[in-house]
Amino acid sequence: MHRTHVKVLEGVLDANDTIASANRDDFDEHGVVVVNLMSAPGSGKTTLLEQIVRDLDGVRVGVLEGDVQGSLDADRLASLHVPVTQINTDPGFGGECHLDANMVRAALPSIPLDELDLLVIENVGNLVCPAEFRIGEDHRVMVSSVTEGEDKPLKYPLMFRACELVVVNKIDLLPHLDFDLERFLGNLDAVHPGVERMLVSARTGEGIEQWRDWLLRATRLLRT
Amino acid sequence: MHRTHVKVLEGVLDANDTIASANRDDFDEHGVVVVNLMSAPGSGKTTLLEQIVRDLDGVRVGVLEGDVQGSLDADRLASLHVPVTQINTDPGFGGECHLDANMVRAALPSIPLDELDLLVIENVGNLVCPAEFRIGEDHRVMVSSVTEGEDKPLKYPLMFRACELVVVNKIDLLPHLDFDLERFLGNLDAVHPGVERMLVSARTGEGIEQWRDWLLRATRLLRT
Repeated sequence: MHRTHVKVLEGVLDANDTIASANRDDFDEHGVVVVNLMSAPGSGKTTLLEQIVRDLDGVRVGVLEGDVQGSLDADRLASLHVPVTQINTDPGFGGECHLDANMVRAALPSIPLDELDLLVIENVGNLVCPAEFRIGEDHRVMVSSVTEGEDKPLKYPLMFRACELVVVNKIDLLPHLDFDLERFLGNLDAVHPGVERMLVSARTGEGIEQWRDWLLRATRLLRT
Repeated sequence: MHRTHVKVLEGVLDANDTIASANRDDFDEHGVVVVNLMSAPGSGKTTLLEQIVRDLDGVRVGVLEGDVQGSLDADRLASLHVPVTQINTDPGFGGECHLDANMVRAALPSIPLDELDLLVIENVGNLVCPAEFRIGEDHRVMVSSVTEGEDKPLKYPLMFRACELVVVNKIDLLPHLDFDLERFLGNLDAVHPGVERMLVSARTGEGIEQWRDWLLRATRLLRT
């Protein structure tokens, strides 16, 4: 029974990868670089985007928001005059805990690809399944808040391995937490040795310049 | 296609409910009250348990730990001399993002039910799928950390509706956050009017007495 279950899931992922490739082709055709931004709920993905979308040195950025329900984050970003498209994963059920390639495909007609250089896809807040489903992105980035504890790389290794950049957020709270940054970074290296990481506070702006530079570099490298 | 997908999921949930009922019967037979403890990653479920397991006024408590990988939390609790059983959800795949009734059923032979009055099942850290899968519990409790933001009840309504108690954790950090507690509680009442809630800090011990009392009451009410 378990083997059958795994087989079904493998089939689902194969089908997903095929659609993800089609998405990727469409993004490439329009010259749009795509970042899949993942994290646990409340790690600060939206605030990290609010901090940079207005000043990206000429790079035209759009956002695709994935949420189980509602459009709170999309509304926050739209108020900054960024093109935002909302995907809700809940129709007819309790809600999918991740975006998949098909959901992104269905949203493509609503995204002004011709007017963008960079599309950030804010995934559903979850440290497990989003890492399993490619959606057509060029880059996978995760946000890990220091309030979540040092053990998270060991507990959710697939997510920490799947991404090429780990943004360690909320570092303004470090003086108030029992969080051992060195131990966290050691755990990170244990599951994804040497992965690029940066320490930021979306709230105070500390380290945000680095985050902006990473996005600029990622966009320009792929477009030239 | 989407309708087929929903049908498949409904079938999965029906099968799950049948096994959950069997688990419940087994727990009842042994006079064990079962709490399903859910939250986002890093909200403090394990620390909340560490705070109470050693002093539960004669109630014999055991823990069933659900994690994608590893046994970090189980090790923490076992060091307090609590009977702990570990479930890992990752065999053969990226990892299930929730416990289901069948995983709990498979773990039953490893749990000393005859020696327990209360079993706390610490679910996988995730605000979506754990709320969809009953596992044979009497009570569903969720932990929401103030670091996760005021909007979480609106973004993950099924989880906040599924539980009968919301433990609002990490209140020691309130002075350092842009977190409007009144707004959070308003959002909570919008999705689950009047649901029982308590404000605690697992780190400082503030409010922990209330959490202990709730568990004691839940255990005794069902056993008398």
